[in-house]
Amino acid sequence: MKALVFHGPGSIAWEDVPDAALVESTDAVVQVDTTTICGTDLHILRGDVPAVTAGRILGHEGVGTVVSVGESVTNHAPGDRVIISCISSCGVCRYCRSQMPSHCLAPEGAPGIGWILGHLIDGTQAELVRVPFADGSLHRLPPAVPDPLAVLLSDILPTGFEIGVQYGQVKPGDSVAVVGAGPVGLAAVATAGLYGAATIVAIDRDLNRLEVAKGLGATVTVDASAADWREQVLAATDADGVDVAIECVGIPQTFTMCTQLVRPGGHLANLGVHGKPVELALQDLWIQNLTITTGLVNATTVPMLLRLVAAGKLPVDAFVTHRFALADIMEAYGTFDDAAQTRALKVLLSR
Amino acid sequence: MKALVFHGPGSIAWEDVPDAALVESTDAVVQVDTTTICGTDLHILRGDVPAVTAGRILGHEGVGTVVSVGESVTNHAPGDRVIISCISSCGVCRYCRSQMPSHCLAPEGAPGIGWILGHLIDGTQAELVRVPFADGSLHRLPPAVPDPLAVLLSDILPTGFEIGVQYGQVKPGDSVAVVGAGPVGLAAVATAGLYGAATIVAIDRDLNRLEVAKGLGATVTVDASAADWREQVLAATDADGVDVAIECVGIPQTFTMCTQLVRPGGHLANLGVHGKPVELALQDLWIQNLTITTGLVNATTVPMLLRLVAAGKLPVDAFVTHRFALADIMEAYGTFDDAAQTRALKVLLSR
Amino acid sequence: MKALVFHGPGSIAWEDVPDAALVESTDAVVQVDTTTICGTDLHILRGDVPAVTAGRILGHEGVGTVVSVGESVTNHAPGDRVIISCISSCGVCRYCRSQMPSHCLAPEGAPGIGWILGHLIDGTQAELVRVPFADGSLHRLPPAVPDPLAVLLSDILPTGFEIGVQYGQVKPGDSVAVVGAGPVGLAAVATAGLYGAATIVAIDRDLNRLEVAKGLGATVTVDASAADWREQVLAATDADGVDVAIECVGIPQTFTMCTQLVRPGGHLANLGVHGKPVELALQDLWIQNLTITTGLVNATTVPMLLRLVAAGKLPVDAFVTHRFALADIMEAYGTFDDAAQTRALKVLLSR
Amino acid sequence: MKALVFHGPGSIAWEDVPDAALVESTDAVVQVDTTTICGTDLHILRGDVPAVTAGRILGHEGVGTVVSVGESVTNHAPGDRVIISCISSCGVCRYCRSQMPSHCLAPEGAPGIGWILGHLIDGTQAELVRVPFADGSLHRLPPAVPDPLAVLLSDILPTGFEIGVQYGQVKPGDSVAVVGAGPVGLAAVATAGLYGAATIVAIDRDLNRLEVAKGLGATVTVDASAADWREQVLAATDADGVDVAIECVGIPQTFTMCTQLVRPGGHLANLGVHGKPVELALQDLWIQNLTITTGLVNATTVPMLLRLVAAGKLPVDAFVTHRFALADIMEAYGTFDDAAQTRALKVLLSR
Repeated sequence: MKALVFHGPGSIAWEDVPDAALVESTDAVVQVDTTTICGTDLHILRGDVPAVTAGRILGHEGVGTVVSVGESVTNHAPGDRVIISCISSCGVCRYCRSQMPSHCLAPEGAPGIGWILGHLIDGTQAELVRVPFADGSLHRLPPAVPDPLAVLLSDILPTGFEIGVQYGQVKPGDSVAVVGAGPVGLAAVATAGLYGAATIVAIDRDLNRLEVAKGLGATVTVDASAADWREQVLAATDADGVDVAIECVGIPQTFTMCTQLVRPGGHLANLGVHGKPVELALQDLWIQNLTITTGLVNATTVPMLLRLVAAGKLPVDAFVTHRFALADIMEAYGTFDDAAQTRALKVLLSR
Repeated sequence: MKALVFHGPGSIAWEDVPDAALVESTDAVVQVDTTTICGTDLHILRGDVPAVTAGRILGHEGVGTVVSVGESVTNHAPGDRVIISCISSCGVCRYCRSQMPSHCLAPEGAPGIGWILGHLIDGTQAELVRVPFADGSLHRLPPAVPDPLAVLLSDILPTGFEIGVQYGQVKPGDSVAVVGAGPVGLAAVATAGLYGAATIVAIDRDLNRLEVAKGLGATVTVDASAADWREQVLAATDADGVDVAIECVGIPQTFTMCTQLVRPGGHLANLGVHGKPVELALQDLWIQNLTITTGLVNATTVPMLLRLVAAGKLPVDAFVTHRFALADIMEAYGTFDDAAQTRALKVLLSR
Repeated sequence: MKALVFHGPGSIAWEDVPDAALVESTDAVVQVDTTTICGTDLHILRGDVPAVTAGRILGHEGVGTVVSVGESVTNHAPGDRVIISCISSCGVCRYCRSQMPSHCLAPEGAPGIGWILGHLIDGTQAELVRVPFADGSLHRLPPAVPDPLAVLLSDILPTGFEIGVQYGQVKPGDSVAVVGAGPVGLAAVATAGLYGAATIVAIDRDLNRLEVAKGLGATVTVDASAADWREQVLAATDADGVDVAIECVGIPQTFTMCTQLVRPGGHLANLGVHGKPVELALQDLWIQNLTITTGLVNATTVPMLLRLVAAGKLPVDAFVTHRFALADIMEAYGTFDDAAQTRALKVLLSR
Repeated sequence: MKALVFHGPGSIAWEDVPDAALVESTDAVVQVDTTTICGTDLHILRGDVPAVTAGRILGHEGVGTVVSVGESVTNHAPGDRVIISCISSCGVCRYCRSQMPSHCLAPEGAPGIGWILGHLIDGTQAELVRVPFADGSLHRLPPAVPDPLAVLLSDILPTGFEIGVQYGQVKPGDSVAVVGAGPVGLAAVATAGLYGAATIVAIDRDLNRLEVAKGLGATVTVDASAADWREQVLAATDADGVDVAIECVGIPQTFTMCTQLVRPGGHLANLGVHGKPVELALQDLWIQNLTITTGLVNATTVPMLLRLVAAGKLPVDAFVTHRFALADIMEAYGTFDDAAQTRALKVLLSR
């Protein structure tokens, strides 16, 4: 089969590799019909994720068709159209049993982390992929949900919803500030309404992304390069600050912006993937009754989000900006990497 | 009347002042039968709390007898024996109505902070004290609960319980690490059992305080000066880390210790009063599904804790190490300030 | 002033009475600009609520202008435009402090019940009304929210939302069945989306009301007189049953319908005012992991719902079907009482 | 092997049957070291559970040693000492994934019910037992926990804790009334302290069981045959009623007692197995803001309870009143069935 193979920092190639095949009795092999590229894949390409070693097939998102299943797999059969979750969940370890498969203890070679596809084992940017713990890691797809919407459920929508909106404890009537309107920030914008947020403020320097945010549910947008960005946000919400601030960039400045926006008793949900420490102003914040959360997605809400997408209650078409054939993935990486110019959000690759 | 007056950093005196008197219709004046000194009072004395200005009577804890009430006060009458809460709560602002009076919007001169006694208005280290919002800020005391236990309910026990144990979301069977076994850390130790903690590890450099912690419910104690303090904690709990770490010191090192102890999906509750920023290692922690909380006590659990103390279900006698007459308060401050030598925890001052 | 006075079962009159006046220091007197009639008022008229005695002015809903306030009232001043909550909340008793003012202990003559207006003291179907505990029982109204929307916040919307949607623990993606599409059922339909319900099924015999339900957010409607009503609901949701069933009629048959609709692990929220016992089939239900709730509204969500209405996020215009001058209230009662013919939902009375 | 076989109502026998053997790849076969008899077994014997057909081996509780495992089983190996959960959980269906395996969809022949052992497939009152879904249905046992304590974790302790204490939402400081002090009621008494209950009232007609209740944590006991039983309970708690009432008998009278004890805003958790409907006085209760729950145990708390038992934090020795050899199980049934005379609570059968 063909696959996108990582050969070390700066080097990837679409090349021939052996076909993916069943190894464990709980595995499935899935033909990849549609996959996409995540910001994390760019981090890997730059060498920021040393656990990814040369020879690894990248990708942890995808929609496909089951080709074969191990003998213990009971929920899926060849021919099933499925969403491949970015999290592999054994269903029996104590993390999976407490609905936190992001820290599943079972994955081979990686006890304690549920994200293994395109990270510690071969991933979805390929014609075929082996999916461990298929019963808990694949989700059957109703015919009415097309690939371009379904593939958003592999990672981006559950990440924005679970780690942004749910961890941020958004409640009906809340004001929510989303700092960073990239794909994951937009996923938080698009799902904040599921808990009845009254005001959703999107904050970014990229005015195009702010436009997209409006279409996905932002009620106010603020240019982060404005000197009075904070005053603009508070004017749109409450002088006390927002109920929930969601960090979706992953750098110290944007994290600090969030601490400056949130009201006493409020929530700061960190979605950004950070590369260095942040300074937390506890001399001011110790008395503020804040809740700060971090997290890798658990993907436990995929069936629920799928139900909403199928019911037309989550209009998320705007996420998909570009489409390529799977064989043109090198060009797709270029488009996605140059998002400031290409305005790429999610770049789809289809069989 | 006599009162302990702050005259600027380093300077306090027990001196004659005008009697406390009713101002608002929602006030009560209370005769102070028993009061105590808080670590925060030492901070004020050192000039660390600039909002406290010269001429202020200190103290925010106390048990007393109601002398007079304003005409709108309905819950209390002269002669009632009461606990004076360290938080003044109007009961009608949006913070009080959402059970967060720590940020009550009503207090005169200080919208947004429920702690005003001995801070922004005169406090309890006096023969008489004016208590604003008496209906919501005093708690009637059953005869069976003696002053030395009752006075712990003004601040220290609800602080340890609400901001440590409840914000830390301690659950039955949890492992809990309490870093810092001073009075507020011991309050967290003493109340963690109310949510069924299985393992309570107290960590401190002061071996005497570790002994006290054992008497209050710690199942394991660890000397924080040991090179292998972390290994000792994990050996007593789980190699993954503890479910809940409670910071009770207020310096960067102890905060960082807590981040190093908590398991994926765990909770870090900050109780310490910090004077400078801490470095938060988000490059490691972004993926850990942590919840970090900060907070000033709301004192909403005082009636419940009082019920438990009255029922003998919260044996907290060990907190009181020294007793003085109110007139000897200068000596009491000395004893409390020299806790390493005197082994003082709570120093009581009685009429 | 003029007021609608109850003279015993079957007898009400719009007549001259002494002006409402301040009694307690926490009172306000409010000029009623808009009021409405509740199904409960009809129950009173029929003699079903013996606590309402002859001479009582009816009505517990209204929007008005503050005329005068007692000296302890701090949140409101003459001239303020306000929503009058159907619940009077002292803010300091243990029920108010735990966010359950429906059982406020303070109201004169009625410790334990927060609904006193038009029940145990004179109400809002009058030119003026005395409102006890004004700080906690009135809500200031922004100019942009007109009376016909604001008056829905006195009772009907918070009742549907709190006792139906919140007590029913509606979650994103849930299927919700609302049995009974009268005003309170429609309020549940209109607010279920605040927690992201995927499917909202309205069930009634009145096809007109089912039409209204569609406009307010119902995704499916079922004629309760159809023999296969249950099959229709399950076909639209899940063969297991619905996640949440909300009873909005108040008779044994509809309560039983709800128990027959809800899935294992689901919720049944009772909103209906019942006049007789129901038979609960515990021989079948003991094993079903059900949660059944009952309740009088607490009205603690009024500020939040007001925020959503002001933001245009809760389009509830369809509730108001008829308008009258206050002086024509007798005719309005007739129209409301004959809802099957007049298609009345909320009948507004304005100054 | 030998096993206790049900031959229809009134007829059981300890007799030779074929050895239990692996069927599915997720099965384990376990040698039963200790088992016990549940009240439900007596119901089966009386013919009250028609799903149990002639030829079925009874029993759903046990501690044993793994003999063999299917090839998909990863958590357990031959020789492991294990608790056998009364609930069989596949770990991948939507009920298991939402922590409600009581309604697991996977069990063969019984989609929707997690209790299959000794009910729909052969059970634990035998020398060997086949355990489906071994990874999710067995719990490895530390050497320090002896069989007589461990066997309580198969059913009785998690049932009392989950369906009584957790569903009843017991909170620190609460008053809890347990109506019925049989084994399951005593399990609720013994575990209510894990959420800090201040007052635990045990109510029964059997004075011996009330004595046992005291030893397990009841702070007050009330003879249910006293005319003033209700007054006694309220005198010991609060005139408003108790925060939580737990029904542990399963007849209409005791359910009604619970509705008469609980305060506005309180919780009624039903643990009893009912054989007929109860009358629910909604004409009084609709306004009481009650929460009523029912349920079959999920057994998701077994690992946590095991941790507490191992730590000596849950002293439950008093449950075991009688011990027999497994071969004497017919005599054990007699002793258990005549509990009023024999004072039997849990009757242990050991290899």
